[in-house]
Formats: sequence, structure tokens, C-alpha cells
Amino acid sequence: MNTNWLDEIKWDKDGLVPAIAQETGTGKMLMMAWMNREALELTVKENRAIYWSRSRNKLWRKGEESGHVQTLKSIRLDCDNDVILMEVEQLGGIACHTGRHNCFFKELQDGQWVEVATVIKDPDDIYSK
Amino acid sequence: MNTNWLDEIKWDKDGLVPAIAQETGTGKMLMMAWMNREALELTVKENRAIYWSRSRNKLWRKGEESGHVQTLKSIRLDCDNDVILMEVEQLGGIACHTGRHNCFFKELQDGQWVEVATVIKDPDDIYSK
Repeated sequence: MNTNWLDEIKWDKDGLVPAIAQETGTGKMLMMAWMNREALELTVKENRAIYWSRSRNKLWRKGEESGHVQTLKSIRLDCDNDVILMEVEQLGGIACHTGRHNCFFKELQDGQWVEVATVIKDPDDIYSK
Repeated sequence: MNTNWLDEIKWDKDGLVPAIAQETGTGKMLMMAWMNREALELTVKENRAIYWSRSRNKLWRKGEESGHVQTLKSIRLDCDNDVILMEVEQLGGIACHTGRHNCFFKELQDGQWVEVATVIKDPDDIYSK
């Protein structure tokens, strides 16, 4: 497959682009992470979300340890060519490393961040030591 | 109101944080832009999305020219404290400066970005010259 479509992305100065994962069916926001060119190309090639981990400085095949793979349903680009939106199926129903359905579980209420989602599975049971 | 909640945000090296706007009711993704501390504080204070424009280097009260204000319904923070998710009501039903409902109107199909949403209103009719 040609990769001209990758040339249209406006990468930031670190060669990255924000990538948002939205759950298919529910429309719930799962997470936002980052992709470099290789990650985005592999995401499409392997039909699953593959990010660039800025903390570990390497490719991050979402679900590689946890099994919580994000299967790609569609991929979109915004008007400025600098944000990626994926529609994904979240295997295991858990996107967050804290064991919650998604990463956006803190809501601002009266000037405080309040946790509004429960832990579905203990992270100790998700990740091998 | 206290602003301690702002201290919990992990701003990037430019003092910014990505802010995602999702439409209340439909769950559709509208756009992603950036906020600095002042923008986020004002967003909550004025109950409408206020971003930091990186291109114009100033506060951007979404809808200030177009009237397409985003009224804040809720605001969430992710597990890493470095991404903001807003649930908003999109006045005018148009979030994108191209006159489309939202900014994610290019979908990857067979190695090409294809426009999959129509222009609701001509940008020339949205913005005064």
C-alpha cells in the first residue's frame, strides 16, 4: 500500500501527533496518546492502535501486556492535519492502565477532581510483574 | 473559587495541555485544541470552551467571531493529568472553521484521506472579513 497519506500529517517538532481513541458503539472517549510516523503506519497495517510511548521512548502496541488491544474500526484526520481520531473496539472493555474502562475518570466538581468511574480489574491482575 | 485543581494538571513544556471537545447527546468528537492555565481557568469560570491559539499566540474564546460557542457541560481529566475532555453543547451545530459539524471529516479509505462530511455553512458567511 502506498504511504502518501502519511505525508499529509502535520507532525509536531518531536515528530508526533495526538491520537484519540473513541469506543465504537458507545461513542465513549477511551484515551489520548501519541503516534509517530511508524506507529501510525503500523496502526493501519496491523489494524490495531499502536502508539509511541513518550515515557518509554518506544513503540507501544496497546494491549501487548494487558491483552486490552484496541481493534481499529476507522481512522480520521482533522481539518489541520494534526490530530488523529480512531474508532476502536476495546477488547476486555478496559482502556486505562488503572483498570478502568477509560482514562477520563476524574471530573471537576466544585473545584475538585473527583473520581467518577470504578476500577473494573485490579492493575496487579492485569500486568505481570 | 479555589484554583488548586489547576495545579494538578501536568502542563507540557510550553505550558499547554490538549483539550478535546465532545458533543453532549450525540457523543460525537468535535475538535481538539490546546489550553494554557489561563484558558482552562476561564473555560470553567465562563462555562464555555476557551482555548489557547498556538498560531495566533493568544486566548481563543471559541465562537468569538463565528458565534459557534461551546457551552461547557462537564470537564474531565485523564489518568496522567495531561489531557482534558470536555462535554459541550455546540451552538450552531458547527465546530469546524471549514463550516462542518466537526473537525474530523477526513477518513482514511484505501490509503487516501477522503472527505466524509459536508459543509453546512460557507466559511465566508461565518466569518466577517
